[in-house]
Amino acid sequence: MIIQLDQDITAAQQKALADKLASFQFKATPVSTQFAEYLIGTGKVEFDIRGIGNLEGIKDIHRVSDAYKLVSRKWKVQDTVCEIGEDIKIGTGHFAMMAGPCSIESEEQIAATLTHLKKNGVKIMRGGVYKPRSSPYSFRGLGIDGLKLWHSMAKEAGIAIITEVMMTEQIEAMMDYVDIFQVGARNSQNFNLLDALGEVDKPVLLKRGISGTLDELLQSAEYIFSHGNEKIMLCERGIRTFETAYRNTMDINAIAMLKEKTHLPVIADPSHGIGVRQFVDKIALASIMAGADGVIFEVHSTPEKAFSDGQQTLNFGEADALISKMRKAFRLRQEF
Amino acid sequence: MIIQLDQDITAAQQKALADKLASFQFKATPVSTQFAEYLIGTGKVEFDIRGIGNLEGIKDIHRVSDAYKLVSRKWKVQDTVCEIGEDIKIGTGHFAMMAGPCSIESEEQIAATLTHLKKNGVKIMRGGVYKPRSSPYSFRGLGIDGLKLWHSMAKEAGIAIITEVMMTEQIEAMMDYVDIFQVGARNSQNFNLLDALGEVDKPVLLKRGISGTLDELLQSAEYIFSHGNEKIMLCERGIRTFETAYRNTMDINAIAMLKEKTHLPVIADPSHGIGVRQFVDKIALASIMAGADGVIFEVHSTPEKAFSDGQQTLNFGEADALISKMRKAFRLRQEF
Amino acid sequence: MIIQLDQDITAAQQKALADKLASFQFKATPVSTQFAEYLIGTGKVEFDIRGIGNLEGIKDIHRVSDAYKLVSRKWKVQDTVCEIGEDIKIGTGHFAMMAGPCSIESEEQIAATLTHLKKNGVKIMRGGVYKPRSSPYSFRGLGIDGLKLWHSMAKEAGIAIITEVMMTEQIEAMMDYVDIFQVGARNSQNFNLLDALGEVDKPVLLKRGISGTLDELLQSAEYIFSHGNEKIMLCERGIRTFETAYRNTMDINAIAMLKEKTHLPVIADPSHGIGVRQFVDKIALASIMAGADGVIFEVHSTPEKAFSDGQQTLNFGEADALISKMRKAFRLRQEF
Amino acid sequence: MIIQLDQDITAAQQKALADKLASFQFKATPVSTQFAEYLIGTGKVEFDIRGIGNLEGIKDIHRVSDAYKLVSRKWKVQDTVCEIGEDIKIGTGHFAMMAGPCSIESEEQIAATLTHLKKNGVKIMRGGVYKPRSSPYSFRGLGIDGLKLWHSMAKEAGIAIITEVMMTEQIEAMMDYVDIFQVGARNSQNFNLLDALGEVDKPVLLKRGISGTLDELLQSAEYIFSHGNEKIMLCERGIRTFETAYRNTMDINAIAMLKEKTHLPVIADPSHGIGVRQFVDKIALASIMAGADGVIFEVHSTPEKAFSDGQQTLNFGEADALISKMRKAFRLRQEF
Repeated sequence: MIIQLDQDITAAQQKALADKLASFQFKATPVSTQFAEYLIGTGKVEFDIRGIGNLEGIKDIHRVSDAYKLVSRKWKVQDTVCEIGEDIKIGTGHFAMMAGPCSIESEEQIAATLTHLKKNGVKIMRGGVYKPRSSPYSFRGLGIDGLKLWHSMAKEAGIAIITEVMMTEQIEAMMDYVDIFQVGARNSQNFNLLDALGEVDKPVLLKRGISGTLDELLQSAEYIFSHGNEKIMLCERGIRTFETAYRNTMDINAIAMLKEKTHLPVIADPSHGIGVRQFVDKIALASIMAGADGVIFEVHSTPEKAFSDGQQTLNFGEADALISKMRKAFRLRQEF
Repeated sequence: MIIQLDQDITAAQQKALADKLASFQFKATPVSTQFAEYLIGTGKVEFDIRGIGNLEGIKDIHRVSDAYKLVSRKWKVQDTVCEIGEDIKIGTGHFAMMAGPCSIESEEQIAATLTHLKKNGVKIMRGGVYKPRSSPYSFRGLGIDGLKLWHSMAKEAGIAIITEVMMTEQIEAMMDYVDIFQVGARNSQNFNLLDALGEVDKPVLLKRGISGTLDELLQSAEYIFSHGNEKIMLCERGIRTFETAYRNTMDINAIAMLKEKTHLPVIADPSHGIGVRQFVDKIALASIMAGADGVIFEVHSTPEKAFSDGQQTLNFGEADALISKMRKAFRLRQEF
Repeated sequence: MIIQLDQDITAAQQKALADKLASFQFKATPVSTQFAEYLIGTGKVEFDIRGIGNLEGIKDIHRVSDAYKLVSRKWKVQDTVCEIGEDIKIGTGHFAMMAGPCSIESEEQIAATLTHLKKNGVKIMRGGVYKPRSSPYSFRGLGIDGLKLWHSMAKEAGIAIITEVMMTEQIEAMMDYVDIFQVGARNSQNFNLLDALGEVDKPVLLKRGISGTLDELLQSAEYIFSHGNEKIMLCERGIRTFETAYRNTMDINAIAMLKEKTHLPVIADPSHGIGVRQFVDKIALASIMAGADGVIFEVHSTPEKAFSDGQQTLNFGEADALISKMRKAFRLRQEF
Repeated sequence: MIIQLDQDITAAQQKALADKLASFQFKATPVSTQFAEYLIGTGKVEFDIRGIGNLEGIKDIHRVSDAYKLVSRKWKVQDTVCEIGEDIKIGTGHFAMMAGPCSIESEEQIAATLTHLKKNGVKIMRGGVYKPRSSPYSFRGLGIDGLKLWHSMAKEAGIAIITEVMMTEQIEAMMDYVDIFQVGARNSQNFNLLDALGEVDKPVLLKRGISGTLDELLQSAEYIFSHGNEKIMLCERGIRTFETAYRNTMDINAIAMLKEKTHLPVIADPSHGIGVRQFVDKIALASIMAGADGVIFEVHSTPEKAFSDGQQTLNFGEADALISKMRKAFRLRQEF
């Protein structure tokens, strides 16, 4: 049960509401986001919600029995659109592109990438400065200094930054240099990190775990939302199956179904979704047809020399072609 | 190693070739299809294939070390196009639609479906007369009588028939009434059935097993081809994963990658690929963008009353809309 | 709903029963096995089963709402024990071993294996004469002649034979030379084959499909049972997962749970369950602790020279050691 | 390549070694653990390791090309045994039991559990004070205060404590109250947490990720080891597959194979491995036969009233019986 409170609810009204809920043995969790005040009631008793909805100080009320509530379409009919600056809108009706290298490597690399993105009208640049690596002996990113350099260059170019945060301690230091925080697949159920990102006033792109169900993904989003941050995007990036012909198996069904289950934007990551450079374009285009609100993909001036993941990274020419095709596919979908 | 033989190769030339192969300890399997004569050589010794290619009576030779050879692009550069009558072409450059109910139920149902397909320009009707059912207490189809009725009506309407064959004993009886034999997911590695279909001069649509790898699918196709039938289409129909939000997980990656690995047409089955009626259209459109040469889907005048699988079956109105969208998506893809 | 009929039920009594069921819109499937006559009622209406149970000519009645009924413990409390000759019992309270090569290769191989088994008190020999192969270019077994040779030698040695049947057409020819028909993983949902084996008066060992659920396995067993053959054993042989460190992932949970869900014997196949020779013994012993009624495993005088699957096959010395350990483990389990 | 250094290696000797490695374009990572000093060399050039092994200041050298090196048996022949106090040994030749509730709930619960464990000779108590929960609205544990209470009671009873740590910030506060840090399945690739635990002088039980491969698990262990902590145990706790009959699928193969791949102790968690109370005992016993060095399981005085996961938790009587059986199974295995 989600109770949206009036912004000027009085202490007495709150007390009356709390007593009412307690009488049903419901637990009430207050949620205060950038946009509104909510009470999330969890309990098992059946009752007529109008008995609560008629109390004073309450704006709206909705019964939701899913494990996730606030991120559910059962609560919010209108689609969430995340805005970055005046220029960027991510959500239904818009088409977002985020592109860049797996890892931020050097000033030259950043400059070349920014030029490429600007030329193509891509407004968000991706890149890792903290890299999760299966092996402790692999390159783990340039860290905060790399981020600062990148930020100063991106700002000048008018391009927003999305990058992965791996632990709560990094948030504060990264805050001023990041436009979208990315939570990686391995941290999709790192609940402490999700809690912390719920208290940040920046959009968060939450990747699905490598074997995470849709329900788990939505519950992880609920963590962020219930700590106060409504600016969340979900990202399908391929799941782990028995098939070894590709690195991951892009779950195209997830894109179609998430758009139905939640009001949050859904972004596709075809680079990880198949993990084979040659097919990234086809999977990107398929994702748009399935309903994705945007595509995040890897591009590098010379993929074969990239620090990491070069085998799934497009070169600039390939990216030029893909971007043009994606725009056409999105336009066609809008006509449907 | 694939050796394509001259059509007029002499016995003496064949003997010379056999001796040569034996000298390398290679096993030679003769393959005679509708279109050509081949020898498939399997063995482990490395040698210069020109030593064989220069023998008389040999048209072409190619080294292929994959477990599948004839269905591989390493052998055949040009895409296979399956033709049915003068009117229907299935393969690269064409877009095939196959639609109809899960099960053939009645004369009225057949008539209504044929009318719907004709109106939409769909030239192939799907439907089961032998139904594989997990439970022995479920409806198992109208059998050969249903097929004969269907065939007489479809012929009059000028519509081709695709239907599932479940066992070798059925082939002969079905032969005159079927345009495309379908092999279901559960029979994807029923090698005796594949052998038998290899000796039939009709196209075969081979579905991927519910947890079959791409390599297994291609090896199953190799069974059919190596028994003499080159008219094969592969079908991606969703795989089994940990995700329970949908009946199967459409493996969109498979469509993109199969088109690269093989010269055979690749058909998408979005109805089974997601198993939820509401999303069949999105998955169909995504499949086209991923490279599918055609789409097979379920349609019924009243899905809620269908004998089986109604929950993934479109009604006529939904199918009308989808067909129109698919044509537009295919046209856009052709422009790319 | 399962209705067990009196053996001397009259036509009039049957008619009364049929009318009663029809009045509830229940479909009735008659099942006649080696041991009893049943009616399986399937329908959706709720009613008091005593209204039927009190009719004349009825021995017992039980409501079962699972998709499988006859193989369920909800129907039959006492465990099924399959007997072969006077000497072999397979089921709760007994411990069955079945051992032998992947493929039957030669007279020498059969002789050596039989000697090895007799020495160890193993009473059932496994081996394939029809081999399902992913690739059409692999060895497919010695066929019926190999089986006849094997049978004459095994009979003399007093050893029973279990071997795989791949298609209905093979059953008749194999019948006189086989003690247990094995249905392989790839044919676990080959319903026509299951139907046909339901009409045979020989035990059937039914392997779980490579990604078959327990419910699907039990429904496949129900096919056999509902066609008249109650002598069924289930076999866990590893499932397909994301893990590639072994050929299959032995589902030890399945053994424990199947023993609870069904009255049929459950056999473990550790050779395929892990597919790595070095660990077959550990998985065999674990399977016994989980509740397996028997173990089927691969043994060969010289595994490295075996025609197929040598990498999961024990040599005679390894098998000697394993058999001794298994007997001890089974004895310990019986004490628990 | 692993280079074990003499404890009294000189700066000059280190310099010579560094130069040598640099000449091969090898990257050298120094690792200093509780027990030894290592250099891990990573690079691609082939060379004769004796050229390095003969340098002064080097104790031993071994080429290991796996992604994990220090935790590999290719490096260390002798099994690692983790010791806690004078009394507890975990590793080959010993049998460890860890039991207790899912969540620490109250003083009464702790007292009852400790009494139960002491009576059964179980020396390690498990329990969560920080609980990872899919839903933000679930109980998340008693936190540090619960841990302190538990610790004071357990210390008096002479029982060691294992509990989950979820984030690096918790380590310091927990340090004095914990005997074994547990890393949960969801944090199996939380590399920052692994880094931090590598700097702690306490044993770490590392759970396999819910869809983690054995290689990923071993690489995660390598993180801990390469930061200085050699006291690591691996834990198999079930993986995610297509089967929904149980919460997870216990990967019994993993236990057998991990014991071969690594010198670290391997612990089985049958409670999560199947997730169904009734079968926990069978899976525990199977795990011992597969080679587990210990078993961690859930027990509660009244499972049906437990705060969480009651459906997989044994009551005291069930645990009494299981412990007795496990000891017998372990004794039998030792005889093999």
